[in-house]
Amino acid sequence: MVEVGEMADKITGIDIRILKLLAKNARLTYKDLAELLDTTRQRVSRRMDRLERNGIIKKYTVIPDYDSLGYMYALLGITLKPGTDIDSVIEVLKENENVKVIQKAIGSHNLILHVAGPKDMKEMDRILSEITKKVHAIDRLDITFVTDTIKFETL
Amino acid sequence: MVEVGEMADKITGIDIRILKLLAKNARLTYKDLAELLDTTRQRVSRRMDRLERNGIIKKYTVIPDYDSLGYMYALLGITLKPGTDIDSVIEVLKENENVKVIQKAIGSHNLILHVAGPKDMKEMDRILSEITKKVHAIDRLDITFVTDTIKFETL
Repeated sequence: MVEVGEMADKITGIDIRILKLLAKNARLTYKDLAELLDTTRQRVSRRMDRLERNGIIKKYTVIPDYDSLGYMYALLGITLKPGTDIDSVIEVLKENENVKVIQKAIGSHNLILHVAGPKDMKEMDRILSEITKKVHAIDRLDITFVTDTIKFETL
Repeated sequence: MVEVGEMADKITGIDIRILKLLAKNARLTYKDLAELLDTTRQRVSRRMDRLERNGIIKKYTVIPDYDSLGYMYALLGITLKPGTDIDSVIEVLKENENVKVIQKAIGSHNLILHVAGPKDMKEMDRILSEITKKVHAIDRLDITFVTDTIKFETL
């Protein structure tokens, strides 16, 4: 039996509860989720399909320990010169495999980049120079190297 | 048959390949991964157990679309006054449910916070003021609001 509102496009309480459980462990099975939420596997799978289709779930991913893998992680807060076409800047950066995260923003910075590279300051300097050279119209640049992640939640 | 080096603590090529696949889709089953990597389910499950135990896999999670869920997402780049005990600051912030990410860093900022809150500037202002009041010893603060995430990869 399809519940009232179940097929509508709005986000319901069960969606939020599913998302919160998946944020803690994205590998929970339909069965695990159904048991935790006292509902059926069918309902969980139906809601998750919809959340994926609507783009509310963008991705299921793994958060690794970069340090153990031999990586350094740098955050670049960039303010572009007024009038710069941010989308063409992003287009150039998108294919760079060291650039892991690209975000548009407003406030202190209008472009946020996360850059992963080897734990070698000389090599990292080369990677960051190459990236900032491609952005060119930089008014202000803040570079921060992450040394420890104490909390990482997505929801 | 246990392969040479399999039980050692070092990260091998198969680990990296498993991590890269899980970074794209953390819900891949042992069976999916075994087929993609042309190996056995047993080997995949053994490697993943070890990656989890060693803390190389910190978490399997979901990346949601904050905007659709009615959230704003703010990044705080903080430089603490010299001599501030950063760990006691972190201790205070850890339990705050709006603070989703806490990272120690060096460079432009020495503390990075990600704050999620409702799409209501007045309410967000209240949340951010409460957080910065708790940090108190702030020398410099950059607040950036994420408006669009174009790329989000973890590996």
